Amino acid sequence: MAIERAPHYVKEFQLYSQEKIILELNAHEEKGYRLLFAFEEDFPRSLKVLPDCPPVLSICGNHTLLNKLSLGIVGARSASFSGKTFAREIAQILSAQKIRIISGMARGIDTSAHEGSLESGTIAVLAGGLDQIYPPENKNLYEKISQQGCLVSEMPLGLFPGAKHFPRRNRLISGLSHGLLIIEAAKGSGSLITARYALEQNKDIFAVPGFPTDPRSYGGNTLIKQGAILVQSFQDILDCFLPYMERDFKKLNSLKVSAKEMSPKPPLSEEAISQNILSTLSHTPMNLESLLNELFPLSTQDVLTNLQELEFLGQVIRSANHLFSLP
Amino acid sequence: MAIERAPHYVKEFQLYSQEKIILELNAHEEKGYRLLFAFEEDFPRSLKVLPDCPPVLSICGNHTLLNKLSLGIVGARSASFSGKTFAREIAQILSAQKIRIISGMARGIDTSAHEGSLESGTIAVLAGGLDQIYPPENKNLYEKISQQGCLVSEMPLGLFPGAKHFPRRNRLISGLSHGLLIIEAAKGSGSLITARYALEQNKDIFAVPGFPTDPRSYGGNTLIKQGAILVQSFQDILDCFLPYMERDFKKLNSLKVSAKEMSPKPPLSEEAISQNILSTLSHTPMNLESLLNELFPLSTQDVLTNLQELEFLGQVIRSANHLFSLP
Repeated sequence: MAIERAPHYVKEFQLYSQEKIILELNAHEEKGYRLLFAFEEDFPRSLKVLPDCPPVLSICGNHTLLNKLSLGIVGARSASFSGKTFAREIAQILSAQKIRIISGMARGIDTSAHEGSLESGTIAVLAGGLDQIYPPENKNLYEKISQQGCLVSEMPLGLFPGAKHFPRRNRLISGLSHGLLIIEAAKGSGSLITARYALEQNKDIFAVPGFPTDPRSYGGNTLIKQGAILVQSFQDILDCFLPYMERDFKKLNSLKVSAKEMSPKPPLSEEAISQNILSTLSHTPMNLESLLNELFPLSTQDVLTNLQELEFLGQVIRSANHLFSLP
Repeated sequence: MAIERAPHYVKEFQLYSQEKIILELNAHEEKGYRLLFAFEEDFPRSLKVLPDCPPVLSICGNHTLLNKLSLGIVGARSASFSGKTFAREIAQILSAQKIRIISGMARGIDTSAHEGSLESGTIAVLAGGLDQIYPPENKNLYEKISQQGCLVSEMPLGLFPGAKHFPRRNRLISGLSHGLLIIEAAKGSGSLITARYALEQNKDIFAVPGFPTDPRSYGGNTLIKQGAILVQSFQDILDCFLPYMERDFKKLNSLKVSAKEMSPKPPLSEEAISQNILSTLSHTPMNLESLLNELFPLSTQDVLTNLQELEFLGQVIRSANHLFSLP
């Protein structure tokens, strides 16, 4: 997986004639699509920093999703049943935690990742023009995403995706994402090209391991050896995304805090924090996000440290799916 | 996997009456077994350093195997077909490289590891007395190991292994081994107790990853997260064992080197090393150990660095099973 071989597209953008631009604009308007230019304010911030940022995106659906905290999920087209189930479930759980799921609408893992995150607005980055549904069996999914999520392409309408368009598209999947999760990827697969872009773009890389006798384990296992974060469950990703989530969360909550409350206070003692946690928890299991919400303005770090301590002392129980409760 | 919970047995050794000792010695002699005492010179050096080193071992077969470079292999009793195949194959390849395989003769992974390494002398550490064949279906394996390998126990003859004897036995598997490989281990399994001992004993820990939906992936994946070496193939273990192997190898070879040859020489240039490698290799693939043997006294480091370079330049081909040849 030599990084130096990841292709870039800086010199490959072509100037359109004015006539063609007008035709493209009209075609977009006709279909209810939108052209989003790199100079516009709501153009994805994460793409603007790329050396080969596309000058314009062709968009169908809710383009505001493109500026949200997001995770790219990519993997084998010929994925295993377990792989697809895992992709669907992790996409569902994470998107319910307001992490948007980005993928490429290919067969296998991509399709499952979109299916799992449909309800909370999934993002599909297409290799061809926005009006080219590929693979054809995803017509239904395509329509659902256009209504509930967002379809994105940097290609003109009418362009049918060819082999060379997929690696190029992959840089947009990693570019749009805050982190990239690889689920089942054989040696030399497109998912590993996406991982290579993510590495270059300095994104967090997450990988699901696999038993070595399955060729689809090669990518994940090799990436883990090279430093990718091993993913056993959604919690491994949440742990890494918490700092981003906390930032958003604080921004939201700061609006509610009055001037008086904002004056500096002495930090709470360990004991007081533990007491706060215990009085917030009940015998009904509660997830971490809700707990943090209740305990605001305590920092995530403080809460996690004390939770661990309380868990160790047997005063708090963490269930298999990372819910917390009193014993 | 809290380390502090690994049980130790320092205070659990009982003094035998002289009468019992004589009975035990006689019983051993009768069966062709041997009692090996900790004060004897050929007692395993790796056990002598343990805080709970057994004062005496009950031995059947070739006890000199116990002082050789070795890898412990442990894993699930209810292992998958892939798991057992992987265990058998890796045991076979590594034992052919003169790494002795140590395991516990349990069902599943243990049995496969012994089967794979039978020919080169495998070591089975038993939880009960040496004359207690457990599990009974391994009678055939037991007999083969007694002839070609070595059976070890710290328990008196006649003791049938109970639940409490297995964790105790596990510290001997890790203690005797230079490194420990875990293949398929569910949460709370005995293999993870062995891994805990290996950690405390400061051994290299190797783990085979697995897809998270398989409960047997828990142990390996969790250990990898905690720093264990991810094993995709035997090569991952050979890479770590090379320094030990090189030491043995140098000791052997130094006997052949004349005084004249031992006087310091200026180091060879990169070019000269590459030339040596190229003239040693042919179109017939060759493994690393043979190549190092041929290139003695070049260091493993020098050979590996130059091999990689030559491979990069396309002048050397490394095949899937890590054999080297000219293109």
